[in-house]
Amino acid sequence: MSIQLEIQHVRHVLIRLEETIIFALIERAQFRRNLPVYETGRFGDALEGESLCGFLLLECERSHAKVRRYTSPDEHPFFANLPEPLLPPIGFSHNPLVPNRININTQIRHTYETDILDQITQPGDDEQYGSTAVCDVTSLQALSKRIHYGKFVAESKFRNPTAPLRTALADANAESVLAAITDAAVERDVLDRVHAKARTYTNELNQATAQTALPPAVIRDIYKDFIIPLNKQVQVDYLLQRQVDESAEGGPESSRDI
Amino acid sequence: MSIQLEIQHVRHVLIRLEETIIFALIERAQFRRNLPVYETGRFGDALEGESLCGFLLLECERSHAKVRRYTSPDEHPFFANLPEPLLPPIGFSHNPLVPNRININTQIRHTYETDILDQITQPGDDEQYGSTAVCDVTSLQALSKRIHYGKFVAESKFRNPTAPLRTALADANAESVLAAITDAAVERDVLDRVHAKARTYTNELNQATAQTALPPAVIRDIYKDFIIPLNKQVQVDYLLQRQVDESAEGGPESSRDI
Repeated sequence: MSIQLEIQHVRHVLIRLEETIIFALIERAQFRRNLPVYETGRFGDALEGESLCGFLLLECERSHAKVRRYTSPDEHPFFANLPEPLLPPIGFSHNPLVPNRININTQIRHTYETDILDQITQPGDDEQYGSTAVCDVTSLQALSKRIHYGKFVAESKFRNPTAPLRTALADANAESVLAAITDAAVERDVLDRVHAKARTYTNELNQATAQTALPPAVIRDIYKDFIIPLNKQVQVDYLLQRQVDESAEGGPESSRDI
Repeated sequence: MSIQLEIQHVRHVLIRLEETIIFALIERAQFRRNLPVYETGRFGDALEGESLCGFLLLECERSHAKVRRYTSPDEHPFFANLPEPLLPPIGFSHNPLVPNRININTQIRHTYETDILDQITQPGDDEQYGSTAVCDVTSLQALSKRIHYGKFVAESKFRNPTAPLRTALADANAESVLAAITDAAVERDVLDRVHAKARTYTNELNQATAQTALPPAVIRDIYKDFIIPLNKQVQVDYLLQRQVDESAEGGPESSRDI
């Protein structure tokens, strides 16, 4: 269906998602930490047992499920038991991925609600709970998309494996796979680019509004400490499963009559 | 409740909303015009008679109504018949506005779906309908907030009226009120600032991704041709109603025994 799923477009998508993530984090950072937004039961039992953030995310996913967002291979819901699509299914003829159920959104949400928010927000409470939670939903969805794009990166590496990756996959050794897909130079380029962008975007904002700064290095470090490692985790998970699938299908010991 | 509603904070809120609007328009501009997103019935009769954009907006407002978004005096829904809040009401003790039902979202949506999208997007269809509609919801909500903030601006002007405004209000003459609240120098400052910000944000993006440019002058002109005029329309509507209320309450010919 979508050209955005083709492997040659992965790099472009990842670079463009940097803006989406930086904008989302800057938007969230205008509000305080606002801890009540993340406390289950804080607003009574009206929110289906969720925090305000969780409830808005759930409601958003319900809406988006109805218009078939989560049928797309580059989209991953945070919640299960979402409604069926109201729209007819579409084919994703450009989808290069093998079928998989890899979804680390639980971990992404936890990382966001604790580590990332601690770093991007000022402590305290400004009572802008609704606006805060709306920004959270945008941030979480952008982070999830960026991190799970690791599947497309991994598929590309699987199709053109380096020698160390080939060996690591043959051994089914997660640690070696992680080492084989890690390219320090590429990571440094990403971090430098994100840092430069963040500097531009936050500087402009700070000049215009005298808002307390969200330091560009913080955005860079969120990439370094969370986005890149989680993205690589998705790559490793995908590659290990991909290898098992491939062996089952094409390997000499494979048996198709399960 | 919220300090953001206090009159001395209006200018800060308006300046900060420029980022929100610029980011939202840049995000939308990465996708094509995608006309099917705005066609009623395009996806069969599954979407309650709405276009895809309208349906996602409606669903979003339903969720946000449940967490009492539209009880806040600076929030205005596009749809009627939204669900009741699940959360208990909150008092808005800082709310400086008089009660009013001014809501020009129908006009804002029409302007957005026709004029603004024509200007910010490339023609054509990239089939990214879901992502497109999600960006539309963000853009529409940001535009609505910015434009309806005219109520707070107007309240401030009502409390410290210039001589021409006093006369125009006494005459209940909309055209004179519009003239009296128009400050060409202030508008030029807003447009210059928006233009400068848009230049920074779009330049950075274009350098990094070689994305077809969204020219900064286009964002500036959206402020000039749509946001500022619609904001002033809200101001005029509010001031005329404010004047009637004031006369009814305090004027010598007022009668309270209706």
